[in-house]
Amino acid sequence: MKFSVTEIAAAVQGRVLGDGNTVIEGAAALGEATAKDVSFIRDAQKADVIELYRASKAGAIFVPKDFQFDARTAIVVESPIAAFCHILSIIAHEIDIRPHGIHASATVSPSAKLGRGVSVGPQCVIESDAVIEDGACLMAQVYVGARSRVGANSLLYPQVVLREGVSVGKNCILHPGVVLGADGYGFFFAGGRHNKIPHVGGVVIEDDVEIGANSCVDRAMTGTTVVGRGSKIDNLVQVGHNVQIGPLALLVSQVAIGGSSTLGAGVILGGQTGVADHITIGDGARVGGRSGITKHVEKGATLFGMPAKPVAEELKLQALTRRLPEIFKEVRKLRELIGKNG
Amino acid sequence: MKFSVTEIAAAVQGRVLGDGNTVIEGAAALGEATAKDVSFIRDAQKADVIELYRASKAGAIFVPKDFQFDARTAIVVESPIAAFCHILSIIAHEIDIRPHGIHASATVSPSAKLGRGVSVGPQCVIESDAVIEDGACLMAQVYVGARSRVGANSLLYPQVVLREGVSVGKNCILHPGVVLGADGYGFFFAGGRHNKIPHVGGVVIEDDVEIGANSCVDRAMTGTTVVGRGSKIDNLVQVGHNVQIGPLALLVSQVAIGGSSTLGAGVILGGQTGVADHITIGDGARVGGRSGITKHVEKGATLFGMPAKPVAEELKLQALTRRLPEIFKEVRKLRELIGKNG
Amino acid sequence: MKFSVTEIAAAVQGRVLGDGNTVIEGAAALGEATAKDVSFIRDAQKADVIELYRASKAGAIFVPKDFQFDARTAIVVESPIAAFCHILSIIAHEIDIRPHGIHASATVSPSAKLGRGVSVGPQCVIESDAVIEDGACLMAQVYVGARSRVGANSLLYPQVVLREGVSVGKNCILHPGVVLGADGYGFFFAGGRHNKIPHVGGVVIEDDVEIGANSCVDRAMTGTTVVGRGSKIDNLVQVGHNVQIGPLALLVSQVAIGGSSTLGAGVILGGQTGVADHITIGDGARVGGRSGITKHVEKGATLFGMPAKPVAEELKLQALTRRLPEIFKEVRKLRELIGKNG
Repeated sequence: MKFSVTEIAAAVQGRVLGDGNTVIEGAAALGEATAKDVSFIRDAQKADVIELYRASKAGAIFVPKDFQFDARTAIVVESPIAAFCHILSIIAHEIDIRPHGIHASATVSPSAKLGRGVSVGPQCVIESDAVIEDGACLMAQVYVGARSRVGANSLLYPQVVLREGVSVGKNCILHPGVVLGADGYGFFFAGGRHNKIPHVGGVVIEDDVEIGANSCVDRAMTGTTVVGRGSKIDNLVQVGHNVQIGPLALLVSQVAIGGSSTLGAGVILGGQTGVADHITIGDGARVGGRSGITKHVEKGATLFGMPAKPVAEELKLQALTRRLPEIFKEVRKLRELIGKNG
Repeated sequence: MKFSVTEIAAAVQGRVLGDGNTVIEGAAALGEATAKDVSFIRDAQKADVIELYRASKAGAIFVPKDFQFDARTAIVVESPIAAFCHILSIIAHEIDIRPHGIHASATVSPSAKLGRGVSVGPQCVIESDAVIEDGACLMAQVYVGARSRVGANSLLYPQVVLREGVSVGKNCILHPGVVLGADGYGFFFAGGRHNKIPHVGGVVIEDDVEIGANSCVDRAMTGTTVVGRGSKIDNLVQVGHNVQIGPLALLVSQVAIGGSSTLGAGVILGGQTGVADHITIGDGARVGGRSGITKHVEKGATLFGMPAKPVAEELKLQALTRRLPEIFKEVRKLRELIGKNG
Repeated sequence: MKFSVTEIAAAVQGRVLGDGNTVIEGAAALGEATAKDVSFIRDAQKADVIELYRASKAGAIFVPKDFQFDARTAIVVESPIAAFCHILSIIAHEIDIRPHGIHASATVSPSAKLGRGVSVGPQCVIESDAVIEDGACLMAQVYVGARSRVGANSLLYPQVVLREGVSVGKNCILHPGVVLGADGYGFFFAGGRHNKIPHVGGVVIEDDVEIGANSCVDRAMTGTTVVGRGSKIDNLVQVGHNVQIGPLALLVSQVAIGGSSTLGAGVILGGQTGVADHITIGDGARVGGRSGITKHVEKGATLFGMPAKPVAEELKLQALTRRLPEIFKEVRKLRELIGKNG
């Protein structure tokens, strides 16, 4: 497919600066774009983004309204990234890879209920009394346990496992290898052994949630583990039993949340960050990568470090730590001076 | 099912305080329990647990013998958590979700040996000369490699992978996505490439071991990697080649153990902790979460931090680090004073 | 199989020291070897290796040319580890566990192209237009998405998932649970929700790459995520979208690389290390375990810590941090002295 810059601008209610006749055939990030690609500025405040913008070979670039035009073909829009994603999904000739209907090799319990337009790929297993709602897609080799539910239009990639009694909402995306509903990690020591605490609770994944490859959400002891509406979880993340994750949370790769912790609305945790058990993190709190949370976190706090502290404090302490050799030298000198004077 | 508090107390040899006629229909943690639930005190020493106890809506609560009764219905028992788990497993009407017999879609080698009462779910693969002992259950889509063994009454959840020559003991639980027996990570650089060190050893998982979702235990170069009797491993944990884990160890989520390290009996590692290769950790040692172990650890030590230090020292250093701005200011002031006096 | 030490030495162009008639039946590491095993010295510079060498019960030991002979049977070779690996692969009677041909239970799209000598195990799924080159082996329950390619002689262990449009080179090894081509983690917040950035790019795994169990390599937004020739990745590693990993890199267990970062040739990252997004790490750089990389790294740098610093500096700062109590005491004393004198 070929489009003129003017056509692309029209599709996203943008305004053309420069040559509206430039022909666009693809979409790519600034650093990768060729003269036939449209690209976008993600953060016009960052110096290295501006540098990339100048060096980019892109045929046209989506820029924000307040952006200084730099003598090249651009399309001014409200949100460059939204415009780019819109065009990307049009240009990228996405072939539909979903299975059609129920594959003959799938094992579907007679008591399972499948809605209209459901796709079930090869070698899926759907156990008794499971419910797959309208338009949901199970790609291949997916396991849906007894009494579990997959909400309407959700997409489960190959080898997702939902154990029994797990509920996945509408419009969710579960990437390959996701495991929902494994037993929580709970034992008590008695009689010379670690005795298992039964985990008879469930897992509720609300609508519009996305969970990355090989991530795990454990079932509750009693009650439910909840991943709230619109939350997005990256790969290899661990969510412990009875955790409550508020709507719109973001958990980056390899985060781990201990049992019974609560994350408020819009909480963001950077990659590899750990949260101890029974912790409450207030709405809107943000925590940098590789941090450790061992105490309750206030609403809107911005933390970093191990243990996590306010970002400004952590960065200052990191800087002072690098100056430790200096302070040791200084004190030695002072001691000598005082020795002389004293 | 409905029970009176008196009936529940009788089932666990407990003593009723308060109203023995209260009707109980469920079991739940303190914070989630309703008037129809029985609950329990896990740690009567913790202030926040006591607070939860007071606020709980539970119809009855298991409490320890020395606990101060607080004018509500309670059942005094030796171990509140053991009593709770016992009642929970009775009350939670656990439906048996195990497959019956060998599912027609499973691929079972003719040379594999299956004991009495073995369940093999849909689309499992059991390779040549594998042994599945009496009462073992492979849920669905499980892979058991050639010459591997699954011990009596062990439970393998969907999509567990045992490569060839792996031995799993009796009464083990392997959660979805567990991988046992992948090659250890070993290479040597020669001829301009990383050359693979063959890993021809095995993996032995002793009896009563539980391994969490998507965790990995690598096979040995020669000899065996061993997870000792009664050890419990959480999700997304990495156990390297030739590691020896003593009986009754606990490894919390996202722990990683480097090759050839040895963990003694009852060792506990907090979440996200890393252990370098060729390390020995003595019996009963405990290490806090997000720690790094780069040196041998004495029996019974309690460590924390990166690198790990005795807990008290680490906490003190963390506190002093937060006071670095103060010490820098102080030294500057001293320098000025001495300048004046000197 | 039985061999004399002389025969073994001949097979690796080595020179016998001591008794060439000693009979060898196996191969094992120093600590595990019996009188019937050949073993090897990995690092003759390390004191504990020398100790292991002296204590070893091995019948014969491969030693390097400059090694001091210690009155026991040894075989002097250019590279002890290479000689050991060569003998190990001969002695270990590796049974061929590869499936023969295409298993009847596999689901193979009619439009997929399978080369000569390809093995496809039970319950594999190969989607439309996928290409499996000559001699490649898919063990069991493997998923190969539409238009993906598996290079000649590559080995995919059970339950590997390649989503659509993923390219795996020749002679690669993918361990169980590996996921290639899941969507990158990218969203933008607008209209009260996290909107998904389409990921329409690909993943290219070059020749001779090995990827450990349950590791993930995400697909690019546009363009490709690349794991370069001869790189070796351990278990549970996360490689983000649009990452470029130079040839011959080593990523140890639980490493995570943020989106769009670039690792040069031969980069080595220790276990659990994290790299932020949009970072460049120069050729030959090495980073210790549990480090955090938040800034560009020079060629050949050797870093450690959080944030990562030159190793010598990090170790010095760790040592000084442990002496913080001393400096606080010292400053208090100085203040008192000055108080007296001032």
